[in-house]
Amino acid sequence: MKILLDGMGGDYAPEEVVKGAVRAAREIQENIAIIGPEEKIRECLEANKLSGENIEIVDATEVITNEEHPAMAVRKKKDSTIVKGMNMLKNGEADIFISGGSTGALLAGGLTILGRIKGIKRPAIAAWFPRAGKKGVTLLLDCGASVEAKSEYLYQYGIMGDIFVRGITGKIAPTVRLLNVGAEEGKGDTLHKEAFDLLKNSYLNFCGNVEARDVVYGDTDIVVMDGFSGNVYLKASEGMASAIMGLFKNKLTEGIRAKFGALLAYSKIKDIKSTFDYSDAGGAPILGLKGAVLKVHGNSRSVEIYYAIHRAVDYVKGDVTGKIKEAIEKVEADKPKATESGFDE
Amino acid sequence: MKILLDGMGGDYAPEEVVKGAVRAAREIQENIAIIGPEEKIRECLEANKLSGENIEIVDATEVITNEEHPAMAVRKKKDSTIVKGMNMLKNGEADIFISGGSTGALLAGGLTILGRIKGIKRPAIAAWFPRAGKKGVTLLLDCGASVEAKSEYLYQYGIMGDIFVRGITGKIAPTVRLLNVGAEEGKGDTLHKEAFDLLKNSYLNFCGNVEARDVVYGDTDIVVMDGFSGNVYLKASEGMASAIMGLFKNKLTEGIRAKFGALLAYSKIKDIKSTFDYSDAGGAPILGLKGAVLKVHGNSRSVEIYYAIHRAVDYVKGDVTGKIKEAIEKVEADKPKATESGFDE
Repeated sequence: MKILLDGMGGDYAPEEVVKGAVRAAREIQENIAIIGPEEKIRECLEANKLSGENIEIVDATEVITNEEHPAMAVRKKKDSTIVKGMNMLKNGEADIFISGGSTGALLAGGLTILGRIKGIKRPAIAAWFPRAGKKGVTLLLDCGASVEAKSEYLYQYGIMGDIFVRGITGKIAPTVRLLNVGAEEGKGDTLHKEAFDLLKNSYLNFCGNVEARDVVYGDTDIVVMDGFSGNVYLKASEGMASAIMGLFKNKLTEGIRAKFGALLAYSKIKDIKSTFDYSDAGGAPILGLKGAVLKVHGNSRSVEIYYAIHRAVDYVKGDVTGKIKEAIEKVEADKPKATESGFDE
Repeated sequence: MKILLDGMGGDYAPEEVVKGAVRAAREIQENIAIIGPEEKIRECLEANKLSGENIEIVDATEVITNEEHPAMAVRKKKDSTIVKGMNMLKNGEADIFISGGSTGALLAGGLTILGRIKGIKRPAIAAWFPRAGKKGVTLLLDCGASVEAKSEYLYQYGIMGDIFVRGITGKIAPTVRLLNVGAEEGKGDTLHKEAFDLLKNSYLNFCGNVEARDVVYGDTDIVVMDGFSGNVYLKASEGMASAIMGLFKNKLTEGIRAKFGALLAYSKIKDIKSTFDYSDAGGAPILGLKGAVLKVHGNSRSVEIYYAIHRAVDYVKGDVTGKIKEAIEKVEADKPKATESGFDE
């Protein structure tokens, strides 16, 4: 197996990418390749590696930034890390591509270079989300790959999520819910009512709607969301978590009394922080492409890269891409009848 | 001014409603009337009031529950607190109606009994949202009145929010942003792109898009949201805030060390709780109806009712309903050209 890393993706690249790769390389048997300006990556590698880590460098002279128009940048920058990574995946020279670069460019590159799995209408960005109180994590998708959703996309997100969770966790029939404005059947706009029906009539272990308030308290394995409100859900949760943790940090360092109190309660506060810390979640797979792409947060540090590499191994071993292909072929063969507006080609 | 209270709305009605009313009645000069089963409300009142509070009872024998179909319940239960409240508003027998009852029934009752202000396409539920670090609160709308939004609704939410914030806070040109999947112009689906253009070309102090992550960190006065993702935004934030605060509560009472630490840091932890405590926000106005309706959370205690009554006084004094009427007439007179799909009648 070869795992490709975008050496220039994210705010702390290439240093933190290299550090994460070096740490992971000591533990896994797979090959790791870092794409980026050869000299720069080599310098970083030499400063960080101990000995014997199996890390190769793939030279790429260009970088696509977040400020560029994704599709245009992918077309123009043929020697960028993202375009090069996608081409290597396409040509079978690697098994998975991990990047903290522009999500738009990863999607654009994924769609134009790799292409969608036959039958898949839209790729989806899937993200692991923490749970309060209950064990495990919840897979959310789509987190913003398609902001203009149709009911059949949502239905397919359910299928892709199911395969991904089964492939990674080994669960037999993971539970699926639909993010909606109310828990009862019949809630929401036309899009979500249609998606509800499609999911309900599928082979999935569909358990109905879930309200945004209850996702974090629940133990649903997969929450299907349209890309717009999915993006809002994820970012609202992130914003609120970071706002509250930030306030705790500020308030508990104000004055000696509070500081001393915080010191005594330190290990517990750390527990809480780690519950809502996304670093061990290991990146967000872009599902539905003809190749495995793992997007990590733009502000990832070496620890996130390290975990993402571990997840990537599971992802490839679970043959998620191949299994999505099989599942969608089967679904297409005996497709349930749906209202016209929910479908497009 | 007469302020009407739904004596049977919410999980802790009528006791907590009555308590909140009694507390507020000692401070304000306005008349307060509580709608509900006369005997029950009277008992509560007698158990709680001290002396001289100016509180009247309006008898209503029925209650609409959250489990009922809103429109059907409003049609059938003519003697329910919600239907009675709306009729009193309509007949000029009261100036504002505060209820912790079913949001769906309040909307259905508002639409069928009061009706929309001429020119307003859809009413909007507006909610005050806390800010981390910056002073003041942010008005979010729509939080779920219309889950099937069109761009012109969003544009009108901006107008209604502007009038409400000016009426309540006295700010001259409150800032308006649009909740979207990215901060840059051109982000989002067709709905949000169209709404962006309408808001940008309006008289409002429109400052562009805002991502869900940044709402709580910002100091925007009004954030315009489509009802579906607005509902998701609000509930995601609530869920995450309550999950983290709950974890802190649990963790900091685990073991003597942490307990003692928490005790020392108590006042600071209380500060944080109060920042994200919605109780003093004072309810969510339903804007766009021909009458002032203030929805309070179903789990409101007397303190929420008390604050809502204070807000209600400002709401009526600010003549928000009258001013929305004027503004929308003016806007209709010189309506900006918009794409066809964004409009409907």
